[in-house]
Amino acid sequence: MAFSIVTSSSPRLNLGTRRPILQPPIRCSVSSSVSTKFDLRPYWTTLIAEINQKLDEAIPVQYPQQIYEAMRYSVLAKGAKRAPPVMCVAACELFGGDRLAAFPTACALEMVHAASLIHDDLPCMDDDPSRRGQPSNHTIYGVDMAILAGDALFPLGFRHIVSHTPPDLVPEPRLLRVIAEIARAVGSTGMAAGQFLDLEGGPNSVEFVQEKKYGEMGECSAVCGGLLAGAGDDEIQRLRRYGRAVGVLYQVVDDVLEEKLKSEEREEEDKKKGKSYARVYGVEKAMEVAEELRAKAKGELDGFEKYGEKVLPLYSFVDYAADRGFSVGDQA
Amino acid sequence: MAFSIVTSSSPRLNLGTRRPILQPPIRCSVSSSVSTKFDLRPYWTTLIAEINQKLDEAIPVQYPQQIYEAMRYSVLAKGAKRAPPVMCVAACELFGGDRLAAFPTACALEMVHAASLIHDDLPCMDDDPSRRGQPSNHTIYGVDMAILAGDALFPLGFRHIVSHTPPDLVPEPRLLRVIAEIARAVGSTGMAAGQFLDLEGGPNSVEFVQEKKYGEMGECSAVCGGLLAGAGDDEIQRLRRYGRAVGVLYQVVDDVLEEKLKSEEREEEDKKKGKSYARVYGVEKAMEVAEELRAKAKGELDGFEKYGEKVLPLYSFVDYAADRGFSVGDQA
Repeated sequence: MAFSIVTSSSPRLNLGTRRPILQPPIRCSVSSSVSTKFDLRPYWTTLIAEINQKLDEAIPVQYPQQIYEAMRYSVLAKGAKRAPPVMCVAACELFGGDRLAAFPTACALEMVHAASLIHDDLPCMDDDPSRRGQPSNHTIYGVDMAILAGDALFPLGFRHIVSHTPPDLVPEPRLLRVIAEIARAVGSTGMAAGQFLDLEGGPNSVEFVQEKKYGEMGECSAVCGGLLAGAGDDEIQRLRRYGRAVGVLYQVVDDVLEEKLKSEEREEEDKKKGKSYARVYGVEKAMEVAEELRAKAKGELDGFEKYGEKVLPLYSFVDYAADRGFSVGDQA
Repeated sequence: MAFSIVTSSSPRLNLGTRRPILQPPIRCSVSSSVSTKFDLRPYWTTLIAEINQKLDEAIPVQYPQQIYEAMRYSVLAKGAKRAPPVMCVAACELFGGDRLAAFPTACALEMVHAASLIHDDLPCMDDDPSRRGQPSNHTIYGVDMAILAGDALFPLGFRHIVSHTPPDLVPEPRLLRVIAEIARAVGSTGMAAGQFLDLEGGPNSVEFVQEKKYGEMGECSAVCGGLLAGAGDDEIQRLRRYGRAVGVLYQVVDDVLEEKLKSEEREEEDKKKGKSYARVYGVEKAMEVAEELRAKAKGELDGFEKYGEKVLPLYSFVDYAADRGFSVGDQA
């Protein structure tokens, strides 16, 4: 049987989305023994509000104030879409975990994600003057402070997991696996390698760069949620493939949107900004890749059919990632 | 009674030290119920060789090679004195812990320490072209790669603790405390704050900058060793004060040595390089501060007299930190 998701209230998170760019909103069809009408909007709205509040509390301003302000500037940016924490909490709840068990890790994921973006935007890296619709961190606080804000956010994430995860909800061995998983994803086996290969140019495949630079964060977010809830090894592997596909999908769509927006001037500028499917293969091919990733991610979720409608948030997140419109200036 | 350490073979680690600069090598006197002649040289020599080997194994070169080479360049630098890992292992052994339990954390401390130094040396930070007697990381690999090498070493440290600490030697809750302790020391509550205040200049006290920028690493190293071995809360607090004093002492002596070496040209250059007791208060006052720190650190160790001669390595490390000569070009 099939779930039927109310498309008029399909999840849009906090994007000012007008209409999908890849295809019209689809009716969600996932193999399952349950059939239901399910409005996911309240789920996402509530979850994102909770995550934003937890993040706000997780980085109080202390002495020396400026470093905390720089950290908060990026983590609490209005345009942040909260994809990593949302995937983490949804994956935890899929396996019956309490979202209170997942919030500290969800916040940590957002912190390390923000740290990585701050460093990626630096002039010596991707040289991006803006991020999430506001000036990038170094544009406001300077390169030295931006480096330090990132250096402070990485460890704060790990510390926050240890200090804030309720011990009665998550046994210590699981927390250690979560910490190792995040460390794997952000380091030289993950995002740092992706960023290096992106900068290096040369013959590296766009697939590899995208998987490392963007897939790792999605993979790690979904996997952490599963680990916190005690998912089995096979289930973790499935989450791994799901999260990686969604992470890359998310970025492929971002790049398609950017390509569609850009003017001749921006085309020049973009040449130094690293690899994307849209730039390397063109928009049409990138949209095909996005559809393959959508199918792949949903295919992985079919393996979770025994959890019934609990899979719907992760399922709908795939469509959200694929169907986002222009968040700003969408004239279509 | 008093320990009598064989001064002719007192520990010199891997420095080419000729003679002490603050005062002659002292006979180690620590309140204790044991009296012994104890040659610490084999202890240090063996320990440092083991740490160097573990570090070499901890960062194998994989694809993409360049990022691992940049990481290894700084972590495995010949001039590295291994102060953090040495303090960690010695503190663990003080409380009866096995050094095999401490090695992964010891390696992690050296990794995050190296990461912090790589970022501190960047042109936008302290702008230091050399470190540990060789060109600094960004001088060889470029600023972008140096940032990434640091970003990769931080998480590798945390991951290494989780993946390499023998589970039969250290219960998981202790490991979580170790991870939180390191994260506290390197982040906005510790070294990142110290680096920010150092860059900021202004009215920040040299004491605060030194405690954050250098004391935290010493404190965290000693505390982690104690945590791994299951030391009690009072003992951890004592290690905290001991480690912080030794960490600052170590740097005060470095700064005194540097002041003594520098020429008129270097004096100009040094003005932008942040605060030190020697630069702010002069060499004489800095040497007084060093003696106070030596006394403070040893005073803390007096509280561990029930552990007998097991305290000797930490005790002798205080004198090593205080009495180092010029590692290069010592004409005295």
